[in-house]
Amino acid sequence: MSTPPLPFGIYQFEVYGRGLGGERPALPTTFDGLQERAREQLSDAAYGYVAGGAGEERTMRANRAAFDRHRLVPRMLGEVGQRDLTTTVCDTTLNAPVVLGPVGVLSIVHPEGELAVARAANELGVASCLSNAASTTLEDVATATPDAPRWFQLYPPNDPEVRRSLVARAEAAGNEAIVVTLDTLTMPWRPRDIAQAYLPFLLGEGIANYTADPVFRSKLAEPPEESPQLAIQQWAQTFPNPQMSWDDLAALRSETGLPLLVKGILHPDDARRAVELGIDGIVVSNHGGRQVDGSVASLDQLPAIVDAVPASVPVLLDSGVRTGSDVLKAIALGARAVLIARPYVWGLALAGQDGVREVVRSLLADLDLSLAMCGCSSLAQVDGDLLVPAPGA
Amino acid sequence: MSTPPLPFGIYQFEVYGRGLGGERPALPTTFDGLQERAREQLSDAAYGYVAGGAGEERTMRANRAAFDRHRLVPRMLGEVGQRDLTTTVCDTTLNAPVVLGPVGVLSIVHPEGELAVARAANELGVASCLSNAASTTLEDVATATPDAPRWFQLYPPNDPEVRRSLVARAEAAGNEAIVVTLDTLTMPWRPRDIAQAYLPFLLGEGIANYTADPVFRSKLAEPPEESPQLAIQQWAQTFPNPQMSWDDLAALRSETGLPLLVKGILHPDDARRAVELGIDGIVVSNHGGRQVDGSVASLDQLPAIVDAVPASVPVLLDSGVRTGSDVLKAIALGARAVLIARPYVWGLALAGQDGVREVVRSLLADLDLSLAMCGCSSLAQVDGDLLVPAPGA
Amino acid sequence: MSTPPLPFGIYQFEVYGRGLGGERPALPTTFDGLQERAREQLSDAAYGYVAGGAGEERTMRANRAAFDRHRLVPRMLGEVGQRDLTTTVCDTTLNAPVVLGPVGVLSIVHPEGELAVARAANELGVASCLSNAASTTLEDVATATPDAPRWFQLYPPNDPEVRRSLVARAEAAGNEAIVVTLDTLTMPWRPRDIAQAYLPFLLGEGIANYTADPVFRSKLAEPPEESPQLAIQQWAQTFPNPQMSWDDLAALRSETGLPLLVKGILHPDDARRAVELGIDGIVVSNHGGRQVDGSVASLDQLPAIVDAVPASVPVLLDSGVRTGSDVLKAIALGARAVLIARPYVWGLALAGQDGVREVVRSLLADLDLSLAMCGCSSLAQVDGDLLVPAPGA
Amino acid sequence: MSTPPLPFGIYQFEVYGRGLGGERPALPTTFDGLQERAREQLSDAAYGYVAGGAGEERTMRANRAAFDRHRLVPRMLGEVGQRDLTTTVCDTTLNAPVVLGPVGVLSIVHPEGELAVARAANELGVASCLSNAASTTLEDVATATPDAPRWFQLYPPNDPEVRRSLVARAEAAGNEAIVVTLDTLTMPWRPRDIAQAYLPFLLGEGIANYTADPVFRSKLAEPPEESPQLAIQQWAQTFPNPQMSWDDLAALRSETGLPLLVKGILHPDDARRAVELGIDGIVVSNHGGRQVDGSVASLDQLPAIVDAVPASVPVLLDSGVRTGSDVLKAIALGARAVLIARPYVWGLALAGQDGVREVVRSLLADLDLSLAMCGCSSLAQVDGDLLVPAPGA
Repeated sequence: MSTPPLPFGIYQFEVYGRGLGGERPALPTTFDGLQERAREQLSDAAYGYVAGGAGEERTMRANRAAFDRHRLVPRMLGEVGQRDLTTTVCDTTLNAPVVLGPVGVLSIVHPEGELAVARAANELGVASCLSNAASTTLEDVATATPDAPRWFQLYPPNDPEVRRSLVARAEAAGNEAIVVTLDTLTMPWRPRDIAQAYLPFLLGEGIANYTADPVFRSKLAEPPEESPQLAIQQWAQTFPNPQMSWDDLAALRSETGLPLLVKGILHPDDARRAVELGIDGIVVSNHGGRQVDGSVASLDQLPAIVDAVPASVPVLLDSGVRTGSDVLKAIALGARAVLIARPYVWGLALAGQDGVREVVRSLLADLDLSLAMCGCSSLAQVDGDLLVPAPGA
Repeated sequence: MSTPPLPFGIYQFEVYGRGLGGERPALPTTFDGLQERAREQLSDAAYGYVAGGAGEERTMRANRAAFDRHRLVPRMLGEVGQRDLTTTVCDTTLNAPVVLGPVGVLSIVHPEGELAVARAANELGVASCLSNAASTTLEDVATATPDAPRWFQLYPPNDPEVRRSLVARAEAAGNEAIVVTLDTLTMPWRPRDIAQAYLPFLLGEGIANYTADPVFRSKLAEPPEESPQLAIQQWAQTFPNPQMSWDDLAALRSETGLPLLVKGILHPDDARRAVELGIDGIVVSNHGGRQVDGSVASLDQLPAIVDAVPASVPVLLDSGVRTGSDVLKAIALGARAVLIARPYVWGLALAGQDGVREVVRSLLADLDLSLAMCGCSSLAQVDGDLLVPAPGA
Repeated sequence: MSTPPLPFGIYQFEVYGRGLGGERPALPTTFDGLQERAREQLSDAAYGYVAGGAGEERTMRANRAAFDRHRLVPRMLGEVGQRDLTTTVCDTTLNAPVVLGPVGVLSIVHPEGELAVARAANELGVASCLSNAASTTLEDVATATPDAPRWFQLYPPNDPEVRRSLVARAEAAGNEAIVVTLDTLTMPWRPRDIAQAYLPFLLGEGIANYTADPVFRSKLAEPPEESPQLAIQQWAQTFPNPQMSWDDLAALRSETGLPLLVKGILHPDDARRAVELGIDGIVVSNHGGRQVDGSVASLDQLPAIVDAVPASVPVLLDSGVRTGSDVLKAIALGARAVLIARPYVWGLALAGQDGVREVVRSLLADLDLSLAMCGCSSLAQVDGDLLVPAPGA
Repeated sequence: MSTPPLPFGIYQFEVYGRGLGGERPALPTTFDGLQERAREQLSDAAYGYVAGGAGEERTMRANRAAFDRHRLVPRMLGEVGQRDLTTTVCDTTLNAPVVLGPVGVLSIVHPEGELAVARAANELGVASCLSNAASTTLEDVATATPDAPRWFQLYPPNDPEVRRSLVARAEAAGNEAIVVTLDTLTMPWRPRDIAQAYLPFLLGEGIANYTADPVFRSKLAEPPEESPQLAIQQWAQTFPNPQMSWDDLAALRSETGLPLLVKGILHPDDARRAVELGIDGIVVSNHGGRQVDGSVASLDQLPAIVDAVPASVPVLLDSGVRTGSDVLKAIALGARAVLIARPYVWGLALAGQDGVREVVRSLLADLDLSLAMCGCSSLAQVDGDLLVPAPGA
């Protein structure tokens, strides 16, 4: 679609240049500003679904606090005129260590939903990971992302035949990896959604990958187009999988030749066990604080998990990333890349594809400039020496 | 009255299902929301009596902060399709490790007071503990709770005859244990009540167990029905017992064959001494922060007290429990069960029996789901390995 | 004037009793409430003078935070039916370990100023310490305080003759001790007063002890009654004494047989040096955060200073005391007694003598009850075993 | 212009004296008050440019929090009637350890900009450091500052000829030192400016030292007076210098005989390396939190950097200084002097030269009085013994 704008750090000058013509950015320039604007525009139910977390949302706050417990020590005169933000995850080369993480049912915040996200990712050349609970089929999203890396996220359903079908389709559509989310095998307690009595899937939103799936369809008495309620009921019976075991994960591992990452890992022992089963990458995540209220911050668990697995296994960090310095801190603590979610979802909510692109470009510009200001010209130079603990942390 | 809804974790789907018909939960879904709504509906005096604490309410805040100093480390793939929340306290089997703790004089927040609470507990099959300062007699409450475990709480009065009479009645009514509260032998300094010059007992509220007591009545020149003021005065002379000694506790111990728990313990030495006297269980409690401003958080003292007593003596945790993850943390730190109070009182204030039931079901659903999300299928799997200290704690 | 009401802890029942007649306390029951009400009633200048501190008022906040870093561990069944709050400081027996500390120029908050305070102290039998910067002469205050211990506070002026005269008058008026304040030998930087360009002494307020002093008067060309400006100028030249030395303190020590306490000590070495000079008692104080912005909290320095001086030398704690549990914590950390200031000044501002009495009675009731709730029946039982550090402190 | 008012501590009495005539200070007396007033008066763009920081402004908050982690322990009876605030930095004697730090493009907050600042510095005799990104030429500022020490700050441009020309002019104008800023070799990510699409330099503000530079002018096809856009473009190509190396710093070192300080150092190794190259002084700075979001607080790095360099190399502290006690803390931690910025810029914004003078005089009075209150009569007495860590820090 377009040539990726490199280096990212020039983006700010584009904005300043527009300012000379009297043009201001259409979107707020901070996460809090984006979220506040999104709150004003979205329905309470849709806003709450994205913004909310489990229980008292202590884990959401913990995720942010974890970043504040590390401080960067900038170095001077690093000869940083040219910066290289590329990284590699499971044979996928990324032009920046930032992946648009999987978020389900984006139709509730914008009519173009996941397609707008995919197009923005493609414009920027950044990697994205489609949720299997998307409002759009993985095939349509693949078509919209010809020029950027693309992964597929899977909540393993309790029906192995459906699972295998979803995996096969992800392979066929040219995804470069599958990300298996382990932390959401049942629905958590989210007071904001409970208060709205709102679960979009029960309204038929976010189940496109199921209703388009031949195996899933074969189990329905009537096709979803004719009897949507039947499809919803079948989905509701197929999705929850709390009884899933490590053996089931091993089975899944054997069913695809694609790199397989597991997402939701918070304990080093779980990371080790996954690697023993042949898992190719780990995403340290507490699902943005949406599953277990009061659980550990993702970032706090990152170093121990990096230590627990072989250096050849990439560890990614998800949950709480908001700024360029957050990304730097995660990299310095051993992450190969990070996943972001709410920031780009608010961009989507406010301005569709353009909004996603602007939010992500801003984050990448911030990252690129912060890297330079720290005296580094590539991610390989970013390690623990760049950090000190915040006093009292 | 009804079959207890098990597993509790399906409750959220009930709510989502109702949402399809346009129905939203009648009550706020967070503790802060409940309290705010209750504040709007209740008189300042009644609201302040329940919501308030001693002095500057530092202990109330400490209770909450104590939970934030522990973080759960969820484990993946625990095969948690079936969960078992049962626990046992002094030969009482509980279907969940949550007891509706004793709260006096509930008539001030709802006309059905303790009866509504008892009926809700009975509906859910959860255990409850009636305050001896209730607005309703223990006999009436017993009738309302045929199908759920029931305990009786006692503030030992300074008159041993009255004490013995109350204990005998508790036994006769089929209570399964007596909980002796030691931390309120005189009235504390509660600025909110002082500001309202409000003590409901002086208005004749919350002394039903006294005015119905044959021994207490025998000491009155006129029956309470004819001379309520006389009864109030007699109660005011009988209730305070700051001179109570450990010998008095031993005497009480000898007066009943029921399991005897002591509530208000905060120091391991006091727990040890109680066990030496033959006490059967310990409730670690600072009375919800209502007694000594600036005292330790209950949860912070829990581990040392668990360590101080034999494993056969159950230790329960009271004060500050608001969410499912709070319960999990208390269990992980050694509590056999927890007591809750303000959450269900706000439910009572807002919607009577239905309100109590909805608040408690929500808490149990949250607990059940959080347990599953942590990778555990029974409380026996919940131990200290599930926790890490929050950084800086 | 009246029989001191003992034990203090019954005061709350007096309030509840009045509530039965529909009467609510005239004053707010919390410090924040008192201060807020005072802010509404006083001029900005007078309010700011009392409420404000040095610089950014970090020390004021530090004083409060210091109390929060200690937590009380209540003990059960201490047989606390009778409590004894008495303590002894330099041969003065106090009926409670709370002294109304010296506050200058109280005429700016209430027309009866220091006299109202003295009368309230006398009603309650509590000790008070008159500021030498009072709006009223020490002789008038002595007359108003026949039945309660009374001390005199001195800012040593730079004129030794005036100093000796003030000391001699304090002796003659029957004061039981002199408290020499060392931390205010020049005026600090207080932004609230600067913003109002307000220093009440330059308006002739708060210099009554000077204008009534025969030696001071002898140095004036005209008597203050005829030429107030001349007296103010002379005061302004006599008061500042930043060049004061330890030798000067030794000289002062030699000039009186009364017990001499020094106030403003924050370093153990300064405490030791004072004791070596024959000082009889130490008041650990940062002047309520009014002198050096960012200085240590008084309470944080208390234990080291208690350790630094012989057990025979009483150490008192000033700055930040608001509640009964604050007093208990200070006693547990080694203080013989505490000084309070802003709480009673707000009481004075709002309701004169009655206001002072009500605020102080409330604090003493809170203290008495908190002592009982902690399982102690006298201050001798209050020691470090009653405290644990707040986690993270 | 005037005799420097010494000692500074009498300034408050000047204010109190004016109060007797009904006059209140024209400016707020706290930093927060100044900033709030400035926010009301300035355009959003100009206010945001000065007030804002990088990213989420975590570093700005860290700078302030760092001061709160140290507490002063005042000493009594230090005989502090006369205080000496002088210090020496690279052979420049300063009458106080406070330098008006370099801030670019002050024309955006006040029409007299840097000239007003220079005149105020001259009135007070305090040192100032002109930004090379000033709205006024260094020659004009030199003329306005005949009686006070003056330094010149340099962002080394990527054109060595322009660099040498700027240095030569700074020498010719009688500057006593050059301060080379290393932390801004490219523009950082500042959301407030991005939100306004505002970079004043692109509007031709703040490039006076370039447009007046003969070498810079020689590279323009047309003089700036005729073609301002051309000059702006040339400046935009000359200013960014992210590829600058330590060798380039060595070259700069060889080009001037003036003392050379480097500003922006945060790591001890960078300080050491600078000293090895012959740099004469270190300014520990994170540019007021304007460069790398989440970077260390300047004050937190100060002690390690003081330790890293020889005692003969002065270390100055920049970023976050607001009050006299802040200055004392920095001195106690090893700083020879501090730089201030936003405080005087708000003074400038609100009242031009008078505003700068009033803000700086207030800060110096606060410092002088706080020094006295701590028992010290000269900066030589201020060392680490004056500090204790704040509990929990």
